[in-house]
Parts: sequence; C-alpha cells; structure tokens
Amino acid sequence: MTVFPAALEKLIDQFSRLPGIGQKSATRMALFVLRDSNDLAERLAGSLLEVKKQIKFCSTCFNFTDHDPCRICRDPERANGVLCVVEGPGDQLALETSRAFRGRYHILQGVLSPLDGVGPGQLKIGELLSRIDQEEIREIVLATNPTTEGEATASYLAKLISNKKPTIKISRIAMGVPMGGDLKYMDRMTLEHALRTHIPVTP
Amino acid sequence: MTVFPAALEKLIDQFSRLPGIGQKSATRMALFVLRDSNDLAERLAGSLLEVKKQIKFCSTCFNFTDHDPCRICRDPERANGVLCVVEGPGDQLALETSRAFRGRYHILQGVLSPLDGVGPGQLKIGELLSRIDQEEIREIVLATNPTTEGEATASYLAKLISNKKPTIKISRIAMGVPMGGDLKYMDRMTLEHALRTHIPVTP
Repeated sequence: MTVFPAALEKLIDQFSRLPGIGQKSATRMALFVLRDSNDLAERLAGSLLEVKKQIKFCSTCFNFTDHDPCRICRDPERANGVLCVVEGPGDQLALETSRAFRGRYHILQGVLSPLDGVGPGQLKIGELLSRIDQEEIREIVLATNPTTEGEATASYLAKLISNKKPTIKISRIAMGVPMGGDLKYMDRMTLEHALRTHIPVTP
Repeated sequence: MTVFPAALEKLIDQFSRLPGIGQKSATRMALFVLRDSNDLAERLAGSLLEVKKQIKFCSTCFNFTDHDPCRICRDPERANGVLCVVEGPGDQLALETSRAFRGRYHILQGVLSPLDGVGPGQLKIGELLSRIDQEEIREIVLATNPTTEGEATASYLAKLISNKKPTIKISRIAMGVPMGGDLKYMDRMTLEHALRTHIPVTP
C-alpha cells in the first residue's frame, strides 16, 4: 500500500482509526475528500478543531455540551426529581429523539467492565450519588444497555442507590421484542425476558 | 436531531458528507473523536489540510502525487510504451497492488456519463491523445470498469486511438468469473461474457 503519496497515506491512516472504518472505506473517503471541490477537507478540519475546543462535559449530567450546565439540565420545562441513567451521549440522544422522557439525565460515560479495567471509579457514579444527596430525586430509571456489562452496571447501581436512599423508586427500561420485530427471529434470552416480564393488558 | 450542541451537530453533518457514511455512522464517529484521548481530532484535521496543500495531479498521468512527475511516471524500471488507462486513482491503486502490470498509467479522472453531464471534455482524454503523439506508445490496456459507462468509455477510446494511430495495440482487461467465485451465484451477463471470451488452455 505504498502507491499513494505520503500525505494521502497519512490521511487514509487517520480515517481508518475511526470506528467502523476499514482500509477500503478510509481510502474511498480520502480520495473523495481530495476530489471534492466544495472545500469539504477544510470544513471537516475546521469542525474537528472547533468541536474539541468548544465541547465540554456538563458538570451536572456529564453529557457533552457547549454551555455548562447543558440545555437539558437548565431547561425549566423538564421534570426535576426524575433521573434517567445512561451509558453514553449516543444513548441519551436515542432516548431523547423518542420524546418519551421529560425528566433529567445522568451520563455514566461508560459501563462497568472489569476485563477492560473499568471499575466504578472510572464512571460518573460518585457524581450520581452526590446528585442524590443534593437534588430531590424521587425516581431513577436505569437505561444502560441490555448487555452483560449494562445489566451488571444497572444492578450495581440499583443496590447502591437503594442502600443510600431506600425511598427512591428505581426502575429499569423494559426489555423485550422490539416494535416491528418477529418472534421467529428473536433470540431465546429476549423471548424469555419478554415472557417473564409480561405486563397486563387493560381491555 | 437538535439534542447535541451546535459544534457537534456541525461535525456530524460534515462526516455524513463522506461517501458511505450516514447519519448514524457520522454520529458514532463524532462521539468517538470527542472521547478520544489521543488527539485524533487534531491529527485528522492536520492530515486533511496537509493533503489538500501537498497533493496535486501528476502532469503526465493525472494521478494524485506530491511530486510532479509522480513516482510511477519517473520510475526508470517501468516499461515505456505500454499505457494502462483507468478511471480513477482507486482503480490504479487496485491494479498496482496486484503487481501484474509494470508499464505506465493514464488516469482519466472519471468515465463518460452523458446523464451526469460528463463528456470527453471533462476527462483527461485530450491529454491521453497528446501522450500518444509525444511518447512512443506501443500498447494501450483499457482498464475502465466493466459497467455501462466504463464499457462505453473503453469503446469510445478504442475507436479514437485506432483512428489516430492504427499501429497501437489496444486491449481490454479480461472480464469473467472472479477467482474464488462460484458459477451458481454469477450473473448471466458475466457468464455470457466469460463463455464468449474463453481462452484456450495449453495442456
């Protein structure tokens, strides 16, 4: 792969460090950027530098923000006292686009994963407990992903929170067959969970 | 999608202009860049600007290069007189990694595509004809892609070149079943072509 000039090879190498981008996609992207006449290279470079300069963590919920506290934390229309705990900003974005939750968020910035060396100290768990001390939290919805690590993190947090303040109502987002899904193609674990946590239907 | 701060949204928008990158991949890439602690953002931005500054077209073969003429055009070990005509730098890279061709290249920078407004004037066809005038070209291998546009471009070039200098040997890369392919899953057109252009086997 030493056919291209060094600067181009370097750009391909940088692109291939992005998640989900292999050598071929990176090459395609680099050649596209080179051929592009709309200054995509300059604008992308500018955005990259700007984002690193402007975006910080919200000191309350630990989401990315350009203004501390972030837009959701300072929104007077949102319900105080109800916290949704998620792994990362991408999860929060997904929940937010569903428009089903009108409370506040807390972003853990990861999940417990002992094999990768991520313990409670690496996550924003201490900060969550301080919020429980300082704010009037009535309810916490644990919305970590239904993976091994996400489940472990959720049950760790549930124990921690109920020990600290047993009056807080702790819940977990529902897990089951996704809308539009097909029972035939669902895995056994999902079906088992969906059957065990079935909810009554009001006629 | 107005959950993220403006600078982050802008970066996602820029990423999603790259080929093969949708909104979800762009979001994933932007969040990854933000979280990355190895200055990926700065390095990627630097590479993007550098590539636009350093990389130019080779004035002989019209490939991307940081030094004119490019490495292949000035390589004394490569055969003069044999030109391989390809659509773009990506195609040249693919052929070059096969190490099967030791002549020189000519990059058209596109294919004839009347529906997209690409005529002979938009491609480096005039430049190819000047090379035929100036260099001692014995053979031209037409290696445009086996698509409608690539085929049309190849036959247009074949006619043009043989009219200009009938002594030049013009050939087309072989089209057929790819190595490791399975006849069962090949399309009819490929099989038809592979049967029509079968080559004798020496026992």
